[in-house]
Amino acid sequence: MRFHRQTITVEQARSKLLARITPTTQEKVSLGEAFGRILAQDLVSPCDYPGFDRSPLDGYAVRATDTESATVQQPVYLQVVEEIAAGDVPKMALGPGMASRIMTGAMLPVGADAVIMFEQTVNPGEKVQQVGIKRKLTAWENVSRRGEEVEQGSVIARSGEAVDAGMVALLASFGITEVPVYRKPTIGILSTGSELIDFDQPLRPGMIRDSNSLMLQMLVLQAGGIPVLFDRLSDHSPAVKATIQRCADRVDLLVTTGGVSVGDKDIIASLVDEAEVELLFNHVAMRPGSPTTAAMIGSTPLCALSGNPGACHLGFFLFVAPVIRKMANLPAEPPRWRAILAADCEKPSPFPRYLRGRIEVRNTTLYAIPDPPVKSGNVSRLKGSDCFIVIPAGGRGKRAGEEVEILCYQHYLQ
Amino acid sequence: MRFHRQTITVEQARSKLLARITPTTQEKVSLGEAFGRILAQDLVSPCDYPGFDRSPLDGYAVRATDTESATVQQPVYLQVVEEIAAGDVPKMALGPGMASRIMTGAMLPVGADAVIMFEQTVNPGEKVQQVGIKRKLTAWENVSRRGEEVEQGSVIARSGEAVDAGMVALLASFGITEVPVYRKPTIGILSTGSELIDFDQPLRPGMIRDSNSLMLQMLVLQAGGIPVLFDRLSDHSPAVKATIQRCADRVDLLVTTGGVSVGDKDIIASLVDEAEVELLFNHVAMRPGSPTTAAMIGSTPLCALSGNPGACHLGFFLFVAPVIRKMANLPAEPPRWRAILAADCEKPSPFPRYLRGRIEVRNTTLYAIPDPPVKSGNVSRLKGSDCFIVIPAGGRGKRAGEEVEILCYQHYLQ
Repeated sequence: MRFHRQTITVEQARSKLLARITPTTQEKVSLGEAFGRILAQDLVSPCDYPGFDRSPLDGYAVRATDTESATVQQPVYLQVVEEIAAGDVPKMALGPGMASRIMTGAMLPVGADAVIMFEQTVNPGEKVQQVGIKRKLTAWENVSRRGEEVEQGSVIARSGEAVDAGMVALLASFGITEVPVYRKPTIGILSTGSELIDFDQPLRPGMIRDSNSLMLQMLVLQAGGIPVLFDRLSDHSPAVKATIQRCADRVDLLVTTGGVSVGDKDIIASLVDEAEVELLFNHVAMRPGSPTTAAMIGSTPLCALSGNPGACHLGFFLFVAPVIRKMANLPAEPPRWRAILAADCEKPSPFPRYLRGRIEVRNTTLYAIPDPPVKSGNVSRLKGSDCFIVIPAGGRGKRAGEEVEILCYQHYLQ
Repeated sequence: MRFHRQTITVEQARSKLLARITPTTQEKVSLGEAFGRILAQDLVSPCDYPGFDRSPLDGYAVRATDTESATVQQPVYLQVVEEIAAGDVPKMALGPGMASRIMTGAMLPVGADAVIMFEQTVNPGEKVQQVGIKRKLTAWENVSRRGEEVEQGSVIARSGEAVDAGMVALLASFGITEVPVYRKPTIGILSTGSELIDFDQPLRPGMIRDSNSLMLQMLVLQAGGIPVLFDRLSDHSPAVKATIQRCADRVDLLVTTGGVSVGDKDIIASLVDEAEVELLFNHVAMRPGSPTTAAMIGSTPLCALSGNPGACHLGFFLFVAPVIRKMANLPAEPPRWRAILAADCEKPSPFPRYLRGRIEVRNTTLYAIPDPPVKSGNVSRLKGSDCFIVIPAGGRGKRAGEEVEILCYQHYLQ
């Protein structure tokens, strides 16, 4: 297969790969641990919220009927029978002519059906036996009713929603301490290439440092997976197929870098000639990274990315991140935004080119600012970008002011 | 001070607070740990990259002068003297009429100054003694020159840049294993209110669960701080001032929730009447959360947020996150984007209102979709938003189709 490659589009390639992916199983984790994960079930409120009628402000709890005739000129005077702080259970029920001093968040006493602000009463000292009410209140005015925000038994969060900080607050309010989420997929990372040494080792002649392994670990973490780093394979490694099979058996997805070209030593390219390995694709219409390959190693999907750091970075977003998203039961294909290109990108390319860049909003319009042009593999340009800008295939590229599609990294990460 | 409050704008309040904030000290951490942090120093490349002339493709290393007369019809035949795999150090220098088989990423042999693709040679079998070159090459054609991407001694990353996955790859390529970053600020979290119980405890009458503490912990983590959770203060706690002073001494910033109103029991509001506490502001022109307060407790800044979950969430983004950003030496004020409002928000308000919503790009134009209107404290609406939409103060609000300012959460988080 390695010398006879059929080129398919990025979209076709991704569909072929995603067709083989199923969501991970569910697990229950603590609310704190669930942060950043994806809900695996709908959640129902176990109680009303608020759980009791309460005062949303500092003032006096009253019976609205007692305030019928109240005006600024002729306040109605009520007897203050109790002071109710937040957290207290009121001891006194209100009869006619009675009021209770009440604090924000405190429970309304039996009989009360309205609250008047401190500032709308006469002589609002800290300790008074009587309070003058300066206006008429309607029933349930200034009362947060029991169940007014959420009724017991209603769905408060749905399967597939992200557990963000706001959801954590919501679930904490209901005392939900264990949360059903999708298990984080384990993503094996296996770099290949005899020229590579660990990045923390001194260089030797002819060698370069392996930067892809650490980069992929960080990207997997950001995308919501658990990275599993395997020992690097050299081009001379014996039993490559058995090793890859063993790695694949241990993870939900195996990602390799390097060895996808057509050279003598390209071990991933050779692998897909083996039986038991089902090739999904090995040539994608994209720049950089056209030899990007995917296959099934038994039941485990393999994404074989280019060893070129720029192509590896791109391949992660185009293929690996969507797999992780589908495993978490999220829409695998994040939104595709359109933006105005801020600078000419006129280099012709037979395949769509993915340029790194940044988005900027100018007066409600989205602009895409491409990084200055460099060779695709240039490691110095991998940092500081927040999107890929898609320049379609064809003879002239795109000029500043034209519309382009952009893929924002944030949409691929959790 | 509690009853005599001077209202200032969100921008004035934030400026007063930020004027008291200095960046944290620096520390060196491992490259993996540096991920998501902010560089505290410029970094200089310790070597050229690539570190040697290398082949960017699979083919034959040649001397360009030997190929002068080569054509498809009349290939020039060269003697293949060696096979150089990636990682190898070539043993043979090329003399006239000589070539070496070379793999992607491999070091060029002495004497070679060009590489021809495998596919542009005659009879490219795996083991041949001679190779036919079918076209003329220019000097240094298809060679990645030493130092071509990055020269030794050049600045590869600047203080203030975020260590993203691309930067990790860059630094790994240069064998930079320890990275100078700003120390993560410690952010104390202290909730107040006698009505609160821990979220994992059963409810008692009159009580509600403390949802703000856990939400703030998650937000602090996302913003790049280290949350430090202190024991909750009840309204009856003795020695409130001493306790708050003790907490403040242990962190870079203390964040409290609740107790900022003007009620009898509002312990934070009373605190700012104390000597040794320098009030920065205690009334901000914003909805929700106008009693939001800031002060200096000795040398430690205090952000006292409202206990209302919606106002607490907003206060985090408007005041706490900018403080964390400034401590990391990032621009404290993230970009303010403008967007088209997608639905009417016509409720009049004497102060600017911050509505939660989501952004959407339609045909290169940014839209802001407000959440359906609810009471500001409604816990069920805290989740699933990605921005605040700012509705200016005034009589009529904003209609669908009008421009508004938006604050995207992602810009406040790291």
